Amino acid sequence: MVHISRKEHFNAAHKLYNPAWSAEKNTEVFGPCANANWHGHNFELIVTVKGKPDPETGFVVDLKKLSTLIRERVIDKLDHKNLNEDVDFMKGKMASCENLIIEIWKILDKPVTDLTPYGRLYSLRLYETPRNYVEYFGEEE
Amino acid sequence: MVHISRKEHFNAAHKLYNPAWSAEKNTEVFGPCANANWHGHNFELIVTVKGKPDPETGFVVDLKKLSTLIRERVIDKLDHKNLNEDVDFMKGKMASCENLIIEIWKILDKPVTDLTPYGRLYSLRLYETPRNYVEYFGEEE
Amino acid sequence: MVHISRKEHFNAAHKLYNPAWSAEKNTEVFGPCANANWHGHNFELIVTVKGKPDPETGFVVDLKKLSTLIRERVIDKLDHKNLNEDVDFMKGKMASCENLIIEIWKILDKPVTDLTPYGRLYSLRLYETPRNYVEYFGEEE
Amino acid sequence: MVHISRKEHFNAAHKLYNPAWSAEKNTEVFGPCANANWHGHNFELIVTVKGKPDPETGFVVDLKKLSTLIRERVIDKLDHKNLNEDVDFMKGKMASCENLIIEIWKILDKPVTDLTPYGRLYSLRLYETPRNYVEYFGEEE
Amino acid sequence: MVHISRKEHFNAAHKLYNPAWSAEKNTEVFGPCANANWHGHNFELIVTVKGKPDPETGFVVDLKKLSTLIRERVIDKLDHKNLNEDVDFMKGKMASCENLIIEIWKILDKPVTDLTPYGRLYSLRLYETPRNYVEYFGEEE
Amino acid sequence: MVHISRKEHFNAAHKLYNPAWSAEKNTEVFGPCANANWHGHNFELIVTVKGKPDPETGFVVDLKKLSTLIRERVIDKLDHKNLNEDVDFMKGKMASCENLIIEIWKILDKPVTDLTPYGRLYSLRLYETPRNYVEYFGEEE
Repeated sequence: MVHISRKEHFNAAHKLYNPAWSAEKNTEVFGPCANANWHGHNFELIVTVKGKPDPETGFVVDLKKLSTLIRERVIDKLDHKNLNEDVDFMKGKMASCENLIIEIWKILDKPVTDLTPYGRLYSLRLYETPRNYVEYFGEEE
Repeated sequence: MVHISRKEHFNAAHKLYNPAWSAEKNTEVFGPCANANWHGHNFELIVTVKGKPDPETGFVVDLKKLSTLIRERVIDKLDHKNLNEDVDFMKGKMASCENLIIEIWKILDKPVTDLTPYGRLYSLRLYETPRNYVEYFGEEE
Repeated sequence: MVHISRKEHFNAAHKLYNPAWSAEKNTEVFGPCANANWHGHNFELIVTVKGKPDPETGFVVDLKKLSTLIRERVIDKLDHKNLNEDVDFMKGKMASCENLIIEIWKILDKPVTDLTPYGRLYSLRLYETPRNYVEYFGEEE
Repeated sequence: MVHISRKEHFNAAHKLYNPAWSAEKNTEVFGPCANANWHGHNFELIVTVKGKPDPETGFVVDLKKLSTLIRERVIDKLDHKNLNEDVDFMKGKMASCENLIIEIWKILDKPVTDLTPYGRLYSLRLYETPRNYVEYFGEEE
Repeated sequence: MVHISRKEHFNAAHKLYNPAWSAEKNTEVFGPCANANWHGHNFELIVTVKGKPDPETGFVVDLKKLSTLIRERVIDKLDHKNLNEDVDFMKGKMASCENLIIEIWKILDKPVTDLTPYGRLYSLRLYETPRNYVEYFGEEE
Repeated sequence: MVHISRKEHFNAAHKLYNPAWSAEKNTEVFGPCANANWHGHNFELIVTVKGKPDPETGFVVDLKKLSTLIRERVIDKLDHKNLNEDVDFMKGKMASCENLIIEIWKILDKPVTDLTPYGRLYSLRLYETPRNYVEYFGEEE
């Protein structure tokens, strides 16, 4: 079993703001991340597929197809967007990296696994900055 | 004459939008960068001072002091901010990297040069993404 | 369960030297790393917490608080220090990355886990150079 | 148990081409990667050893010795070579990263494990580009 | 005057081989770079334009248009290609980075300068590896 | 005229300490960099040669020979060393990056220029950390 990974990127705005709280409490908890006028990041998303190489191609998954799928399903919905305002699957959720990676998993899990009979989606890694990132392996059963 | 450089970073939201134009023309010219709800980046700013080392310290400029000055004068005004809405020195200007680096120069030129009798501000470099960046050497006379 | 990571850095001197051995044997085993007058590195430390997002904040752990804790407990004791001479928790131990990461774990394990009811310290990664690094997941039971 | 890693690099040419297929089918499946005249990459290989530190040295494995072993056994056979034409252990195999990492494992597994009584080969990571990479942990039993 | 830069990448094979020399002399001069079966690299190309920002857009040049132009004129001819065999503008020339960057300049100079009335092509930088690169500013008059 | 660059690295210890001053004044001016027991860095050195490509090789300078020369003349004297204690050409000088790069220039200028009739040493860049670096172009006449 080999893990194979593809990195894509997107640039987005967001803020950390709980609408059930006062502005003061938001600032107290989230600091400058609660700025009403937003801030933003260059995000990097790494998608990892685990499986066996297809003997005819040597591929667990065709990285060109994987890249296209990630762009169509995820990047096009996030790039140059506002995570709080413009992204249907983040509506009503705190726009944290933790929540974002879980939602990206829900979107990618089936179509990535359907891309290849030789493997399945194994993990996601999402960099918000070079110093802050999250990783997700799906729900543990 | 030695050039010495210090890199700092900030995360900000912006959009490219000319208010003298229709929304359609903005989208035509700026594409997704004109998104009304903003997008954002992890910016990196490199400040370069040119001069001779002070014989007593070996320094053209004390990088700790240079870092503090950059943070107080520039980073604190840009980090976790909206370049179009929150930043006084960008008011009324297109929030492009070209305009931003020129305004940062105006702010830093005198105080950086005042930091040390051994050198002066030589150049700025500003990364919007790892693949897009600008550089500025001040007004040519 | 999401993994969330924060990267910090410190600059330190050290040497690899076993005081039970002759200088010759130290040089034979450790080569230039045994240089009596020390050498040094820009270290990078990545701290990973594993847990569930708090529904009110979207956070497994507040990265600002995690960063402050890592700096106060670890970075302040290592940055611009000599790992063999200046660091209480390395006294009497070989100043290898393997030993250093185990000691950092002992320091961070309880306070990181205490930072959040939603997660616990999961792993540490320590880069000595961009090409040499160690990772530690705590004692296996 | 600590994981310790060493990164090495090599530059090589390859193409993705299944000789059982027509040229048309190869181009259809592999696109520009099937270019008859080859293309190439700067590969990076990370070798990870898992074990306990030797109390006398503080090392799970001596990274100098590990580096030398990787170079002699793997890098010297791949660097400035054509993966399809020049590399004995890739003969008759699709020159994909998935197949290459499995073959590198077969070569390194025993000698890396023999380098140290304190650990064994744990994983390999192979970057074809900064955005495409594979990881391998050996055969699961 | 602001400098603005865009980075693109391509993967290619090449060899360093002077057909006027014997195989022995080629190996003596170029070492493993003369390998008859080629080797390859992940190249990175940075294109820098120097000029004044257009007051209506804030741009010296539209980086989307610059990126498209670089891809159409240069990257499409080099990516997944053999620099010695597949590239018309390198025919009859040593496939060194020095020669390649001079030829890329000849291709890009006029169309990049035509992209914008506010600037002109200023420099190119070409990375063959992260440790080897060339830079070119055009012919000095 | 093409600029061609080669990056090498070394790991070293140093401190910033003016022996003409009291310990208190050293700490006041240099802060933690004055730590009596040293600290250290992973330094990176970039050497740039400017010239015309040799028509027979396509090279301004042979990068293998340039790399060997840099290692023999500079890296071997700095790597795994203490810049204040072990390095003859830094004796009696403040161990700042500014002073170090000037001394490296003095060592490399003639032998680099002698390596090739097609070019001469143009500049040096020295990274102390990814965020602090100096550049030197030789004495201006």
